[in-house]
Amino acid sequence: MILEGIVTTQDSAGTVNVAPMGPIVDETMATLRLRPFQSSQTFRNLKVVPSGVFHVVDDVLLLARAAIGLLPSAPPTFPAEKVAGVVLAGSCRWYEFLVDTIDDSKERAEITARVVHSGRIRDFFGFNRAKHAVLEAAILATRVGLIPREEVLAEFARLKVPVEKTAGSQEAEAFALLEQYVKKG
Amino acid sequence: MILEGIVTTQDSAGTVNVAPMGPIVDETMATLRLRPFQSSQTFRNLKVVPSGVFHVVDDVLLLARAAIGLLPSAPPTFPAEKVAGVVLAGSCRWYEFLVDTIDDSKERAEITARVVHSGRIRDFFGFNRAKHAVLEAAILATRVGLIPREEVLAEFARLKVPVEKTAGSQEAEAFALLEQYVKKG
Repeated sequence: MILEGIVTTQDSAGTVNVAPMGPIVDETMATLRLRPFQSSQTFRNLKVVPSGVFHVVDDVLLLARAAIGLLPSAPPTFPAEKVAGVVLAGSCRWYEFLVDTIDDSKERAEITARVVHSGRIRDFFGFNRAKHAVLEAAILATRVGLIPREEVLAEFARLKVPVEKTAGSQEAEAFALLEQYVKKG
Repeated sequence: MILEGIVTTQDSAGTVNVAPMGPIVDETMATLRLRPFQSSQTFRNLKVVPSGVFHVVDDVLLLARAAIGLLPSAPPTFPAEKVAGVVLAGSCRWYEFLVDTIDDSKERAEITARVVHSGRIRDFFGFNRAKHAVLEAAILATRVGLIPREEVLAEFARLKVPVEKTAGSQEAEAFALLEQYVKKG
């Protein structure tokens, strides 16, 4: 099944890229099947530095900012233990991986990766409707230009309902940020 | 913010009730603000046995079954440590609570409860769009009769998209169960 989270990768100069990613996993979490677009920095990085770190997160403000390329600066990290890469300090759990194979025959590449180390920082909050509405809104925001704007705005209006009912301040801020991005777009 | 999970309570004979519940919490998880309808078994139980256990879960099949009253039999549990009550063995974390106050001046009661013990069984999976679609579908299913049927079915059609894209077998089974319930309803 698909687990939505954040991946950090590096280019040959060691510059870190932070990007949302929904790899296909099973419950063992022994392997990750990543499917980045070939146009993405994640793909370019993994071609030259074939390792990285996948994170399970519940911080939707971080997720929203990463989705629309609006991370104010590099978020706090610490070095990965077993691979070249960094771990997001704000994540819940992390999975350090090495790339096994890259299939770039399609626009969306298929990368299989092996988890060589994992760690745990804190518990994932749990089900919150606002957090999930922000995740859906972040996915939509990355598709502006591919989906008609009116459709995106109609979906945002629908997603706003659970945000207003169940959000904390982080979720409300993240949703407002995405809304602003989509309206300006 | 609201954390969607499952609460177990007991009546005076010790019969366990398992129900979805979305208490208002803060990150300390020191108190829970529960808002059961006065017509619910959870409310009736807490009036006579003022303690229970709130669970963070990612098992949406359990959640869906509890929502529509279709638990095949009591799910596996073990005794709570500090209160009269039981812990769901399939949960991720649990919070044993004692009721402090009950305000039953409205149809939806407001119960404040104090967490006196908590425990952890395993990690919450993380963000999965299908899991969340099932949660939304389960909430909708409990509102059949209050919301026009066509509206519920239209929402189910919309929620089915992420289920088909990102579900594991548990999520697919849970969604099918809810769909069947709503169509029969």
